[in-house]
Formats: sequence, C-alpha cells, structure tokens
Amino acid sequence: MSYDLWYWPDIPGRGEFVRLALEAGQIPYRDRGREGDGDFSRVAADLDLPRDTPSFAPPYLIADGMVIGQTANILLFLGEKHGLAPADTAGRLWVNQLQLTIADVVTEAHNVHHPIGPSLYYEDQQAEAARAAKVFREERLPAFLAYFERVLARHGSWLAGPGWSYADLSLFQLVEGLRFAFPKRMASVARDTPRVLTLHEAVAKLPALRPYLSSDRRLPFGEGIFRHYPELDAH
Amino acid sequence: MSYDLWYWPDIPGRGEFVRLALEAGQIPYRDRGREGDGDFSRVAADLDLPRDTPSFAPPYLIADGMVIGQTANILLFLGEKHGLAPADTAGRLWVNQLQLTIADVVTEAHNVHHPIGPSLYYEDQQAEAARAAKVFREERLPAFLAYFERVLARHGSWLAGPGWSYADLSLFQLVEGLRFAFPKRMASVARDTPRVLTLHEAVAKLPALRPYLSSDRRLPFGEGIFRHYPELDAH
Repeated sequence: MSYDLWYWPDIPGRGEFVRLALEAGQIPYRDRGREGDGDFSRVAADLDLPRDTPSFAPPYLIADGMVIGQTANILLFLGEKHGLAPADTAGRLWVNQLQLTIADVVTEAHNVHHPIGPSLYYEDQQAEAARAAKVFREERLPAFLAYFERVLARHGSWLAGPGWSYADLSLFQLVEGLRFAFPKRMASVARDTPRVLTLHEAVAKLPALRPYLSSDRRLPFGEGIFRHYPELDAH
Repeated sequence: MSYDLWYWPDIPGRGEFVRLALEAGQIPYRDRGREGDGDFSRVAADLDLPRDTPSFAPPYLIADGMVIGQTANILLFLGEKHGLAPADTAGRLWVNQLQLTIADVVTEAHNVHHPIGPSLYYEDQQAEAARAAKVFREERLPAFLAYFERVLARHGSWLAGPGWSYADLSLFQLVEGLRFAFPKRMASVARDTPRVLTLHEAVAKLPALRPYLSSDRRLPFGEGIFRHYPELDAH
C-alpha cells in the first residue's frame, strides 16, 4: 500500500529528508503536496483537517492508518518498518540521535537568513542575517561538521552499522544544502571533513537513489531552508 | 541499576525535560553534572570522551550500556523502557511527535534572546532580540499554544492516552518556562488556552512529581533557555 507524503510544494525543505528515505528504501508513495501545481493552500487545508494526531507543520506521512508528523519521527517510523536503520535498540536510538542533530543544523541554517522570525521577509532582517551568518559560518557550521567527522572516524564509511541508514541520507542532504547556501565557506571547511564528503559522494552513488536524484522529482534548492544569498557567504 | 544523566550544572535547560521523566517515573539516576559544585568543565570533559555514540551537546543519559543523546531521544528510550508513553506504535510515535514540537518551541524561545548566535552575550544582540521577541510573542507563542490546545480539545486531559506521558511533563515544563520568560504575554495568551493550563496544573500535582518539584533538586530558571528580560515581554 502506498503512503501519502504531505509537504509544501516547490521547495525541498524538510520534506526532502523524508523523500530521500522513501526513494532509497524503494517505498511507494504519493507526493501529495506536489499534485496541485504548486498550490500551497491545498497543503494548508489538509494540515487543518480534524485529526487525532495533527501536525503543527508539514511534513507528515499518512501510513498504515496513522498520520505521522515531525521529520525525525517520520524517519524513525520508516527506519523501523522498512529496515532503513539498525533494528536493535542501541542502533535505532543512535540513528535517531544523529537525525535530531542534523535537524538542529537545519534549524540553525534556516535561522541564518531568518534570525528575527519566519514571518518576515529576508529583506526585512538582512542586517541581522549578516551578523547571524558570520557566527554560523565561523563557529557553528565547522563545529557540526567536525562532530560528524568525529563520528565517521570512529564508525567507518557510514554513521551507524555496516550499511547506510536514513541518517546517512540526511547528512548527504545537509551537505548538499550547506554547499548551495554557503559555497565559499563549505569549500574551506571541507578540507577538514574528508569523511563527511566521502559519505556525501557514496550516498549520491547509491543505486536505489541515483534515478531519483537525476529525475525531475528531485527539487532544486531555492526559497526554502537552504538559500544562497552571496552576501551571507565567505571563505 | 541507576542511570547517569549528564547535563550542564545550575540551569534547568533541556536536561530538565529528562529529569521530569526520571522523577515522575521514579527511575533511579545520578545527576552527574551537578556533582561538581557547578563546574561546567567536568561536563565538557565527559562530553569529549571517546565514545561510539558521542553527543554534540548535553543532555545525554548513560543507561543499559548505551550513551543516549538528544533530549527527545532520551525520552523516547525512557518512554519505551519505563512505560512513560503508550506502548503501541501509533501512540509511541504520537508522543515523540509532540515532544519534537515542544522541542521546536524551546529552540525558538532560546532564539528570542540569542537570535544572532549562542556564542555572543545577550547584551551584544539586544536590539535584534527585541525584534525577535515581538514576532515570538505575537505570532509563534500563540500559534504553538493553540496547537496544543487543539490537541487537548481532541484528546481530553492528557496529550496521548488515558494517563500522562512524558510529553505532558514536557508541556508542563514549557509552560513553566514561558511563564518565567514572558509573564505578561502568557497572562494574555492563557485566556485562550485553558486546557493547556489545566494540564499544567495536573502535572504539578502528580504524586510522583510533587516531592521533586518542592525539593532543591528542582533548579530555578535563570541564565538558560528561558530567561526573563522585562524588555522582551509585553501583553
């Protein structure tokens, strides 16, 4: 039975972390938010439906009679049900921990261009964004990447277990997003995180993922979480 | 066997969400970060130990031979192991979803006084904080509380199931923190969220939690996530 993914159309955003797991796991799904020609109100209307387990925001996945919200929670479900993470308790919790740490970076990357609030335009918080970007570029981004490098130095090619898990797919997407948003800074920092980059390349080559990555289902970055404002980037 | 909780001393912070679950679940634990007279470097040194599952930041829990990081992940473990959440898949995922949404509010509440970055003092980002606080007070805080009110209107006294879960404890702590940080705004918003306030009172009266809440183990708010700067609050 096919799952229903609901997420805003036209941006990869947090929905993309779910898409990557569905695609790499070869799990059938409908991308419901993209069936309406970029109409955001369709997603907003579905989000507002009376449900036992409403979400504060997309993405959410309708699966096995459940409506599952929060990106890391959807991935926890997919990992358990479809073997996209180790099955034992320790491995399952470790992958969830990694995913939550990746989610923290995603939130901070969004905060760079929207430090005052999500409801204001970037142009209305540009000065604050410039200050936030400097802290993110110089302190937070290198610290987070160094953390994942440290994990890979201990674990080998993948973050958990002998094969890939959904956290590896998410780290790939995080690197993609950071490279899009901060190409100069990532070129500098990458020298110190070779294992992270090797993992990024390995995920890009996964046979189950390659067709998706080269398809038009794979959305380009733009006005979502990861945005490229040249004035926010520097070596 | 007793668990070891590691978190920064002297602030309730994210560690408090774990403490509330441990206390309400009557689970023996050592609060390791508080055994050194407020010495942050002890926690930093433990955080840096070579481990298979290192954390980017505290809190983490050492339990059953595992080192479990990320607040929501620790609570997921405690919920499963000690019955602090429904045991079925749907209920377990729902409580995790709620916890992750509470975590989002916590992050945004911290961002109010540190919109530019966590490494700068509040005094160095005070103008930006004033702008961020306005958006949080007027848009985000009411939206998040309305979400939990909506959930309780559907579910009854508790967020999930017939009894309390760790998400209820966390919502209690969130209300405590928001009331400390934004007393004026919370007094206004609370009129529209009676169910959230009733839940808050019910958690405060839980027999398993009352001794802890009135003990000196319960840390007061101060310089952590929830801070009271009068200039950031308004009705």
